Amino acid sequence: MTAYDYAKANHLRFVRELVEFLRLPSISTLPAHREDITRTAHWLAEHLRTIGANTVEVTPTEGHPIVFAEFTSQKPTAPTVLFYGHYDVQPVDPINEWITPPFEPTERDGALYARGATDDKGQVFLVIKAIESWLHSEGHLPCNVTLLIEGEEEIGSPHLEAYLYRYADRLKCDTVLICDTAMFAPGVPSLVYGLRGLVYLELTVQGPRRDLHSGSYGGAVVNPAHALAKMIAGLHDERGKVTVPGFYEDVIPPDTQERELLASLPFDEEAFRQELDVPSLGGEDGYTVLERLSVRPTLDVNGMWSGFTGDGAKTVLPSTAHAKISMRLVPNQRAERIAALAAEHLKRIAPAGVRVSVRQLHGADPVLVDWDSSPMQAAARALELTFGRKPVFQREGGSIPVVSMFQRMLGVPIVLMGFGLHSDGAHSPNEHFHLSNFSWGVEAVARFLEELQRGG
Amino acid sequence: MTAYDYAKANHLRFVRELVEFLRLPSISTLPAHREDITRTAHWLAEHLRTIGANTVEVTPTEGHPIVFAEFTSQKPTAPTVLFYGHYDVQPVDPINEWITPPFEPTERDGALYARGATDDKGQVFLVIKAIESWLHSEGHLPCNVTLLIEGEEEIGSPHLEAYLYRYADRLKCDTVLICDTAMFAPGVPSLVYGLRGLVYLELTVQGPRRDLHSGSYGGAVVNPAHALAKMIAGLHDERGKVTVPGFYEDVIPPDTQERELLASLPFDEEAFRQELDVPSLGGEDGYTVLERLSVRPTLDVNGMWSGFTGDGAKTVLPSTAHAKISMRLVPNQRAERIAALAAEHLKRIAPAGVRVSVRQLHGADPVLVDWDSSPMQAAARALELTFGRKPVFQREGGSIPVVSMFQRMLGVPIVLMGFGLHSDGAHSPNEHFHLSNFSWGVEAVARFLEELQRGG
Repeated sequence: MTAYDYAKANHLRFVRELVEFLRLPSISTLPAHREDITRTAHWLAEHLRTIGANTVEVTPTEGHPIVFAEFTSQKPTAPTVLFYGHYDVQPVDPINEWITPPFEPTERDGALYARGATDDKGQVFLVIKAIESWLHSEGHLPCNVTLLIEGEEEIGSPHLEAYLYRYADRLKCDTVLICDTAMFAPGVPSLVYGLRGLVYLELTVQGPRRDLHSGSYGGAVVNPAHALAKMIAGLHDERGKVTVPGFYEDVIPPDTQERELLASLPFDEEAFRQELDVPSLGGEDGYTVLERLSVRPTLDVNGMWSGFTGDGAKTVLPSTAHAKISMRLVPNQRAERIAALAAEHLKRIAPAGVRVSVRQLHGADPVLVDWDSSPMQAAARALELTFGRKPVFQREGGSIPVVSMFQRMLGVPIVLMGFGLHSDGAHSPNEHFHLSNFSWGVEAVARFLEELQRGG
Repeated sequence: MTAYDYAKANHLRFVRELVEFLRLPSISTLPAHREDITRTAHWLAEHLRTIGANTVEVTPTEGHPIVFAEFTSQKPTAPTVLFYGHYDVQPVDPINEWITPPFEPTERDGALYARGATDDKGQVFLVIKAIESWLHSEGHLPCNVTLLIEGEEEIGSPHLEAYLYRYADRLKCDTVLICDTAMFAPGVPSLVYGLRGLVYLELTVQGPRRDLHSGSYGGAVVNPAHALAKMIAGLHDERGKVTVPGFYEDVIPPDTQERELLASLPFDEEAFRQELDVPSLGGEDGYTVLERLSVRPTLDVNGMWSGFTGDGAKTVLPSTAHAKISMRLVPNQRAERIAALAAEHLKRIAPAGVRVSVRQLHGADPVLVDWDSSPMQAAARALELTFGRKPVFQREGGSIPVVSMFQRMLGVPIVLMGFGLHSDGAHSPNEHFHLSNFSWGVEAVARFLEELQRGG
């Protein structure tokens, strides 16, 4: 029995095991879930032991633990793949918009609904099942595989770099595989060669020392909610450009070849608009939707709050107003520089009558990887064998902070091969993962190990 | 023993009883407190029976019940005062800013801290204690007193008008007394002759049908938080004027006499700024702080929310953004007209790419009352006898929706004589009522009953 036959024969069991993994509410940003995170790390370690890992370790950090495992090939000349993934997930609010509870995984219309289904537990698990498929059918692996699965990706991987330094020896490898991206469209296998970077800030506007009665004080005190609105409104100009001075200074404009590649992708702006149910799309003048989403940097408010937000009417003039603001960066913008420029700009545009403070929550540099590398070509062959069509090469709008860290510290080619869909609802209510993509993912990763061993 | 001596002798007991009243968490806007509201109405009715009311009724409405009581004078020619007050209170959030819990009344530095202490339970209670002081000392009242104490003032008195129509007969009176305003400054007795009106709207900006991953979608979809910020930022121009077309059309500008009166009041802008701890004050160009707070209409955001507002970083592009926006109105603006103009304007300025809806939560017309009426003069004498100085006449920035209703339906002079201070923190954390003002209030109301009977 081949690894691919084994994977097909065991699909239902794989899904049942994934459901167990998804039940664990491993939300990394909320202190209340600290123990759930630890339980998840240990569940994962136990599972890796069960399928036959040569080494398994759960390493504590100052934050959440890192799960490490090694699977050794019998061939002495086999290449080594370092797989990176994360077992932590995003918060679940707005909780009332979930059709079924986020930590009670439910199958509907061929998809499994749960927080983390696609980002990234489902994709971590398909790699583990690809390894199992080799070991439990052929009895060996074509490559050595090292797994590094962290619990802090969704909060910016604050303790990963220290770990990479400390354990540099055991992380030596020929390529890094990451399955945490989306396919361009359903049925279209995709390899990502670029990721945007991220700067995430929290802005606080402080007005009067206490909430005031809006009747007794309204009209004479600068309302911090108005001040915040004015600041946010001024962060884009009428052409949709970010107004932070210096923001575009280091941006490499897409060349003709890349614009042509993007234009050739099977993308329908009208269908995209309809799926989101918006009257019209927006963004920076002079760029297509796909360009706005991949080769251009952006700024978005992720959250905003001030004053009374309950039911009914409370006539309060708020004491403070807050916003979470993030920027997506493209090469060669640097996270630290953009964070500093943005913070400076926000302080400069603060209206009179309020005090403004800015705190950086996290940052990641943008990355481009070599789409011609031998591991990337092995991945392309694996995808073609699995899906029956050549993959598309694309840049993705999201950020995986660790990629630039790996580039810097390991200096090996990186393969970004994901099986999610943008419509899977990562970070949103009703996140799900199509079980067909899970199953294709198991096969594609299993084939990747074989193709990689075969070489370029 | 006179009524005034009785009041002094019983001060400590009065405060103990007020503490009981304040313990009841009668928050009218929150459905969870529905039973607390009913308990409070019955507590009040029982108390009124105990001190000797001739009639007491708790009348259910479609919302919260209305407490009605009659105290009849023995003199057949005695005038009748209708006292209006409310036993409901504002919500308590932000709850973590309260030094002591809002429904565990605590005395500190001569003030009683609790939600409702000044607005309006403390002021309702001082009227009840003034009545008791007459009855339990002199054995009679100089006037007939009718009490109408509702439980929906903080949510716009939606069921009061129907009640006033239905019970018009028993509400006939010579004057209406309301103790729900503030004194101009500590130790400065005050009569209010004008109140601003109110329009309270809730604005919803709908973007994409679900929350999106800000990396995957940021830059191509109009962010509803940005759209909301832009709309709010555009509601005032650079001179601090509200930009809603027609907003100022019916505003009566203050005449020279009124501007002089306001300028003569003992008010220190710098002390006001310092007390609020803001770098500078704000508001409409061309008007003093006191003018901005009383004779000019204003627009304030009372609450605003969108996207992720928890701890940490969530990279979401929000599906919706919301704001609670209220306007304070002055004569001759009409609430219904301003609500319509504002809603129309908000829809007109909605940016492309989002859908906007506006819901009116409540409204009240602004009022001016005759400062020369015989009851107003009786009140002025009562205050002078109590405080040893003549009262100031002022307009207040807040709204009491029922006042214009009384003007329209009863057609009698209205006396707005309050004993709170603006710094009492009505609608804010750590609301309190100075016990000296409570005690002065009991005496002033007791004297008002005598002066009113004496006539103009």
